[in-house]
This record gives sequence, structure tokens and C-alpha cells, in this order.
Amino acid sequence: MINKKAVIVLSGGMDSVTTLAYAKDRGFDCYTITFNYGQRSLAEINSATYYSKKYNCIDHKIFNIDFTKFSNSALTNNKIEIVNDNDDEIPVTYVPMRNIIFLSIACSWAETNNVTDIFIGANAIDYSGYPDCRDNFLDSYEKMVNFGSKSGVEGNKFIIHRPLVAMKKNDIIKLGHSLGVNYLQTVSCYQATVDGKACGICESCLFRKKAFEENELADETLYI
Amino acid sequence: MINKKAVIVLSGGMDSVTTLAYAKDRGFDCYTITFNYGQRSLAEINSATYYSKKYNCIDHKIFNIDFTKFSNSALTNNKIEIVNDNDDEIPVTYVPMRNIIFLSIACSWAETNNVTDIFIGANAIDYSGYPDCRDNFLDSYEKMVNFGSKSGVEGNKFIIHRPLVAMKKNDIIKLGHSLGVNYLQTVSCYQATVDGKACGICESCLFRKKAFEENELADETLYI
Repeated sequence: MINKKAVIVLSGGMDSVTTLAYAKDRGFDCYTITFNYGQRSLAEINSATYYSKKYNCIDHKIFNIDFTKFSNSALTNNKIEIVNDNDDEIPVTYVPMRNIIFLSIACSWAETNNVTDIFIGANAIDYSGYPDCRDNFLDSYEKMVNFGSKSGVEGNKFIIHRPLVAMKKNDIIKLGHSLGVNYLQTVSCYQATVDGKACGICESCLFRKKAFEENELADETLYI
Repeated sequence: MINKKAVIVLSGGMDSVTTLAYAKDRGFDCYTITFNYGQRSLAEINSATYYSKKYNCIDHKIFNIDFTKFSNSALTNNKIEIVNDNDDEIPVTYVPMRNIIFLSIACSWAETNNVTDIFIGANAIDYSGYPDCRDNFLDSYEKMVNFGSKSGVEGNKFIIHRPLVAMKKNDIIKLGHSLGVNYLQTVSCYQATVDGKACGICESCLFRKKAFEENELADETLYI
């Protein structure tokens, strides 16, 4: 268990913070990486900084990548209204290739630091229909990255850990609480204020609210 | 053959320019994307702009991504000397996950434009031992991106075209010449001057020189 190191993709939301706590609990010293990609909610980045310090991470990198230059997602384009979808379609908040790009930059940084354990809080149950959150995608990604990297080719295979992938939101909160996570600083809202207050009505807020309710826990969220 | 569109990853080197000419010849209207990633040679970007205009591309995007923040490659770090490797090892010019990241941003932009044909000039013969230039990696990438994207999941599968992957450098030049490519503006040199002059001694220059020689063609390169 000595000197195990991991890179955690840390958005500052509940899932990624739970994933960080999980990795720490499993004995990993953690590097965290957060992407500033023109998302509406800069409060997420403050949350990521807060939890990186709280969990004594080796280094926290904030990486700028401007999706607004090549994508039309409502998450990065203020002109598109965020609406809640009640059907099975992929919603307007989908950002093409987001997790692929995030994982690849995380793996690049990991390889530079001789790290092969990557953690991502991707979740395919109470998710929003994003294809890049599914288990079979992550399997496929892991295979690909080991074909396409020095580390993988030389036999130091990357492992893409996705401990939450098959968990429901309320089980994620349950896990987090068992690990001592306090979610107050986490940001889930798609349109949170700069100081981290949530709208309470977007899809992501509704998932979160329901999860606290189902666990009969006080809702650790600041609303506007 | 009407309205076929493609996104071309265009570095401005010989391989990517040949790939652009090849895609045009196959009837594709092309979008081109060039990455400004802290590489030593900004002349490549000027070359990419030149050929994008020459081939009447729909749009040419120059995307900034700062690999210097997370990688130690000699291509992006001026403190590491570029040396020619004569063994089979992956050289210091390797940039971790470079093609994975480039392809993913290209696919993201493509999906936004309803394009599923992506062309990359990756080459696994006279290459430098980069794992992310090999055919099996690109197969694996194609499979992964179709699991992880809206387009792929909805049945509009991405195709990652890599027409040069099994070609030797002199066959690439032969192909280019048959398509009418003039290579004068292309930049291959790892340390080209801003106005596009090549050093003539780095690994990439040597590959290029040899290829012109073997084709008994005049060397279309400006040297310092």
C-alpha cells in the first residue's frame, strides 16, 4: 500500500468528490485535475480546489480547454437554454467527447508522473444519458489508451477506475457519508452562482435533492 | 459523392498535407483542425493555414492546447535537447496521448458539424516509434469513440481514416506528387525557424530528405 499514486478527474461535483474520498480510502496519494472548459458553473472549480486541499492532494491542476470553440452544448453555450429532458434522449447538456478528452489529458499528465491509476466519477445509472459515462465505453477507453501510450505499450497498463459507474445517486451519497464526506462545498447545479449556490430546479439539482431525500439525510446544498 | 464532408487533423507537415490532398481527391469537402500545443515549430501552423486555403477548406480551426502544462516531451519543452534515436525506443519527442487528444477534439468538432469522417496522417512505418500512430491503436480508437459519442451511439459511426498508416515516407511523397501536392510550404523539422526553414539534421528532417532522394525528386525543403 506504500506509494500508490493516482490521478483523479475532479469536477467538484458530488460524484467526483466521492471518488476522490474513495481513492484516498483505498490508500492512494492523489493528484487531481479539474477542467475549466467554459462550463457555466465556475463554482465547481472552487469546489475542486477546496476538496483537493482537504484531501491533501499532491498537486491540483486546473486545465483550460475551450469547448465553446467547437461545441454547441448548453453547458458551454449561454445562448442554449437548459431544459430538463424526461425521455431517453441525450440532452442538450451533452458535450461531445468530454470524458474522452478529460481522461486523455489526465492520462497524459499521469504518464508524465509515472502514474497508471486513473479515477473518474462517471456514473451510468442516475446519469443524463451521456454515452461517455457508461461502463462499456470506459472498458473500451482503457483498452485504447493502453494501445496508444508509451506506458501501456511498455506493460505499465493504465487502469481506469470508475467506482461509481453502477451506483445509484443515493448509494453514492451513502458511500460518501460512510467515508466521511461532507457535500456542502460540492456543486452539482448546471447553473450554480459563482459562490456555489444551486438553482434547485435543473436536472442535476433534482437528482441530488432526491438522493438526499431517499437517504433521509439533510440536504447539504446551498440554494439561491 | 455530393456533400461528403470530413475533418482533417492538419499539422502542416508532409503527411497531413498529403492526407488532406487525398481526402479532397476522394470527393470530401474538408474542415481542417490544427493544434497549437506549445510545439517548437510555429511554422507548422503557418503551413497548415496555407494549405487549408489552397484546398478551399470549409473552415480551418487553430486550437490552443498547452501540453507544456502536463508533459515533459522535448517537442514542447525547450530544456530537453532533441537527439536522434537509432534504437527502437520511444524517443524524447513523444508527447503522451497527443493523437488521442487531437482525434478527440477533432471528433468533438466533427460531431457538432454532423461529420463522421475523420482523416489523420498517422504513419507507422517511417515513424519514430510513437504508439499512437499505429493501425491497431487507431482501430481501437475508432471503436472507443463510437461507444463514447452521441453520433456513434445513434448509429452514425465515426470512421477514422488513416490512408498513410502502412506507407513508407517515399511512397507518401509519391502519392502526394500524383495528387499534385507541392511540399515546399510543408514543415517537417522538429525545430524549424518561424519562417519555415528546416534544420536538416533532426530525425524528422532525415526521414524527409531520404524520401525525396529515394524518389529521385528535388528536395522541396527550405533549409537554414
